[in-house]
Amino acid sequence: TTGRLDFSSPKAEIFMSARVQKPLHEQRLETFNDLEIEPIAQVADSYIIARAEDGIWIIDQHAAHERVLYERTKKALINNAPVKQPLLVPQEFEFSLKEKTLIEEHRAFLEQLGFEIELFGGNTFVMHALPAQFAEVDMALLFRSLFEELESGEERSVSPQEKIIRMIACKAAVKFGQSLSVSEQKQLLKDWFKSSERLTCPHGRPVMVQVTFEELERRFKRT
Amino acid sequence: TTGRLDFSSPKAEIFMSARVQKPLHEQRLETFNDLEIEPIAQVADSYIIARAEDGIWIIDQHAAHERVLYERTKKALINNAPVKQPLLVPQEFEFSLKEKTLIEEHRAFLEQLGFEIELFGGNTFVMHALPAQFAEVDMALLFRSLFEELESGEERSVSPQEKIIRMIACKAAVKFGQSLSVSEQKQLLKDWFKSSERLTCPHGRPVMVQVTFEELERRFKRT
Repeated sequence: TTGRLDFSSPKAEIFMSARVQKPLHEQRLETFNDLEIEPIAQVADSYIIARAEDGIWIIDQHAAHERVLYERTKKALINNAPVKQPLLVPQEFEFSLKEKTLIEEHRAFLEQLGFEIELFGGNTFVMHALPAQFAEVDMALLFRSLFEELESGEERSVSPQEKIIRMIACKAAVKFGQSLSVSEQKQLLKDWFKSSERLTCPHGRPVMVQVTFEELERRFKRT
Repeated sequence: TTGRLDFSSPKAEIFMSARVQKPLHEQRLETFNDLEIEPIAQVADSYIIARAEDGIWIIDQHAAHERVLYERTKKALINNAPVKQPLLVPQEFEFSLKEKTLIEEHRAFLEQLGFEIELFGGNTFVMHALPAQFAEVDMALLFRSLFEELESGEERSVSPQEKIIRMIACKAAVKFGQSLSVSEQKQLLKDWFKSSERLTCPHGRPVMVQVTFEELERRFKRT
């Protein structure tokens, strides 16, 4: 037999310990935006394992966070309300001529996002402020990656503005391989749930792999 | 990009928190019999989720425990060394004529397993002792199930002795739907690891579903 609890049994059959029996699938989960899901562990510092009503969800923490930051950035843009973080010590960047042209070309858009960038002389730029949610991002690396992306011939159908938002979200997102505390895992899942397109990251990769109870029962030959 | 940590970056890019970065797959796991695996949670009171070196393992707790009890019983039988639990108050069973015949037929084998059963008169039997590891099993239910199994025409290739061992292991095993503490989960995994045929329960059903990191990277389009 498959060893399901038989409540009709005259005597409770409990081998390892006596405890209140909860019917299958009825354990209490935290409610996030009307959906019940609870992070149970981070694995390999890269995936968040969660239990949901329908089974086990495995979430790519980087992809989920990219999705969150991407939608937040777009929303701030639509509302024309970026939250700026002024820099006490303005940051200097030395660019090549080509890079200078790219920055000039996209400066108006970067300012809409909350960046304050000023040409200082020659190819030197000074950044006075940046979007608050990206305050911890390595800006030199961000700009290098952004220039590469804008110059590459790939994804011609994607606008430069879209590329910029995706790149910022990617660089600011929690890394694949970064340890998260339980409360950070919860916050990330909570934010991710509010996303309008939860299932993919801005690049179109999946954010979640589901292992449903239905699939498990089939694979364990319980059906 | 897939957001892997770039250790060549001049500045650590940490968004959510600053913490020591551990390379992927190198987190410390408990070693069970030279294999590294750690239970991380019980889900739906039925599955134990564990992290292993190669990924996430989902273990059917009932099937795993059946395997443990089955092999332990066989070993005791081979060593002719059942650990008996005497009953302070002997238990009485009232059987039908057919059942009485079945008990008589298999009594020698049941005694080898550690049962002490005596015909009391008519169709009444008295049990004075039973195998210690099955002390908590509902014996009335066990005998009823055993009679059904022995009389059914199914699995003619399986000997009655084998059927008896499988049935006892099944009835004594932790149920699908039974809550386990963390230490019970650990003990079960530890015992299960010592099994010689870990991958299936005595009935041939799978004990474990693996979700390897390789599979995850493929499904998340990280490869």
